[in-house]
Amino acid sequence: MAPLPATAVLLRRRPEGEPRPDDFEVVHRPVPDPGAGTLRLETLWLSLDPYMRGRMSAGRSYAKPVDLGDVMAGQAVCRVESSRHPDWAPGTLVLAGCGWCSASLSDGTGLVRLDPAPAPVTAALGVLGMPGMTAYAGLAEIGRPKAGETVVVAAATGPVGATVGQIAKLRGCRAVGIAGGPDKCRLLVEHFGFDAAVDHRAPDFAERLTAACPGGIDVYFENVGGAVWEAVLPLLNDFARVPVCGLVAQYNATDLPPGPNRVPEVMRAVLSRRLEIRGFIVWDFAHQQDNFRREVGGWLAEGRMATLEHRVSGLENAPAALVDLLAGRNTGKVVVKVAADAPD
Amino acid sequence: MAPLPATAVLLRRRPEGEPRPDDFEVVHRPVPDPGAGTLRLETLWLSLDPYMRGRMSAGRSYAKPVDLGDVMAGQAVCRVESSRHPDWAPGTLVLAGCGWCSASLSDGTGLVRLDPAPAPVTAALGVLGMPGMTAYAGLAEIGRPKAGETVVVAAATGPVGATVGQIAKLRGCRAVGIAGGPDKCRLLVEHFGFDAAVDHRAPDFAERLTAACPGGIDVYFENVGGAVWEAVLPLLNDFARVPVCGLVAQYNATDLPPGPNRVPEVMRAVLSRRLEIRGFIVWDFAHQQDNFRREVGGWLAEGRMATLEHRVSGLENAPAALVDLLAGRNTGKVVVKVAADAPD
Repeated sequence: MAPLPATAVLLRRRPEGEPRPDDFEVVHRPVPDPGAGTLRLETLWLSLDPYMRGRMSAGRSYAKPVDLGDVMAGQAVCRVESSRHPDWAPGTLVLAGCGWCSASLSDGTGLVRLDPAPAPVTAALGVLGMPGMTAYAGLAEIGRPKAGETVVVAAATGPVGATVGQIAKLRGCRAVGIAGGPDKCRLLVEHFGFDAAVDHRAPDFAERLTAACPGGIDVYFENVGGAVWEAVLPLLNDFARVPVCGLVAQYNATDLPPGPNRVPEVMRAVLSRRLEIRGFIVWDFAHQQDNFRREVGGWLAEGRMATLEHRVSGLENAPAALVDLLAGRNTGKVVVKVAADAPD
Repeated sequence: MAPLPATAVLLRRRPEGEPRPDDFEVVHRPVPDPGAGTLRLETLWLSLDPYMRGRMSAGRSYAKPVDLGDVMAGQAVCRVESSRHPDWAPGTLVLAGCGWCSASLSDGTGLVRLDPAPAPVTAALGVLGMPGMTAYAGLAEIGRPKAGETVVVAAATGPVGATVGQIAKLRGCRAVGIAGGPDKCRLLVEHFGFDAAVDHRAPDFAERLTAACPGGIDVYFENVGGAVWEAVLPLLNDFARVPVCGLVAQYNATDLPPGPNRVPEVMRAVLSRRLEIRGFIVWDFAHQQDNFRREVGGWLAEGRMATLEHRVSGLENAPAALVDLLAGRNTGKVVVKVAADAPD
């Protein structure tokens, strides 16, 4: 064992509005040998996710921001490269919150053994990981879709949205996906099996959404906010449920949109249609983990759920890939191949 | 038995903005003898409630609007005056959805026998009736206050707000009431036992509310909307619950307020603090009725809950009293004494 040459991506500047690749800094530095009771991880695949935009800013949120100069936060599939920890043998595959780096030290806290490892192993970052669990638990706890109801989700080719739509179908619901552009919309229907797809970039988006939801909307799984929410609101049925797990269309906004102030309209809809709007993050529903593994794992094994990945090569390309993700310029779950020999 | 001379109040015009007494018309007309299987009710006490503003308008809501020229909708304590219905003996006291009239015919549908009648009998329109049940069920199903938490309610001298605050105290919470003017605020603390009261007319209302809630807000029972909601939002704690049963501050609005559009701010708070915002009407939670009667009835009987009524004499004064109610110009549960000999 000897110091391992490693790459890390640091947060250099808090973005105003849309982040830019040079808000990050790529540095090279060796990671020392593990001491007694610690182990060294080699990062294989890094997950990129919309929540990372929040970590770049200093505002109040459910997680503390990344400090300037610190390694950018993130989850990855890693391999134990060397170990002086009795519980972790070299070669073990783990899920780790190691951040954007090619190698790191750990005392084992928070590591999750991937045993058996899913195939592809990157599923642990997508449909079988945090995004899939977000979809599953948000539907189970807040959406509570019943057969015959209409479930709508935006950013629907992303790993959360695609899982929401497919679970909705498996529960006997009508699944309507919203995505940007005709290619993504085609994927929603042909690859993921949504009943209908609506392009939020179309000038007549609101009319198209109305046409795609002839029975109104019973569950709107909110992960984008902004203009999509405004189009969804009038379509929500009495007793509709709105799990809110993200607002990616708003993350880069520096100002509130111009008036009028539509808050009274939202509250009036909440009252007169008895809506339930509820924010959550996946860890709030950790008690759903076993159900999630059993159900979603089973559907995947039976070939009843489709997945889609966008793979980026090289950690140095992660900043640009995150910028693209936030702008909706990629399709599917975004993962970064950090180790050249990372297994599929 | 002979036709009974009666007074009725009809909806004459749908108000634009604040309603006026002459949106109503007071008419006199005899109510005929009851036919076979029907009974005639004499109205003793009519309830006035904020929801009535909604019935005057044609907009989409949970109940259909009153048609122009029809008797205005409302609940009342009535006495069976004469009867050709086997189940309803003359003299029986009932709760009836008879509307704004001094006498009416009924086939018994929807009548609730007041046996034993509460003392005062008007409690059936307030703390032991729809407003009290709204407070109780909204807290039980959505607010779910835990001992030590802070519960905030506006329109707090009204029958819903006063019941919310007192139940919160009985559940071991800190109760903070919002009301208009120093007199109402004094009542909240001295008569109803709130821990603190905040005057929403004070120029530094938001600062005062912050000072009254040093631990933030865990439950905000929403029945007013508008500017109070904007002051409450930044104080809501993680996992705060917001039952929404009314928006009286918005009912008379003809336009949305000027911008910016603060909806993205609300959604961001929902997400980052995992708020639960949920609209309801009391009948959604009919299964809470037995618990409500047992608990609130018990507290009242033990002298652990205070009430306050604003009594108006004469059905012809109901229109002006409703206008005053919507403007916050009275204090306590508003009831109209319709029969000169109505029992207390």
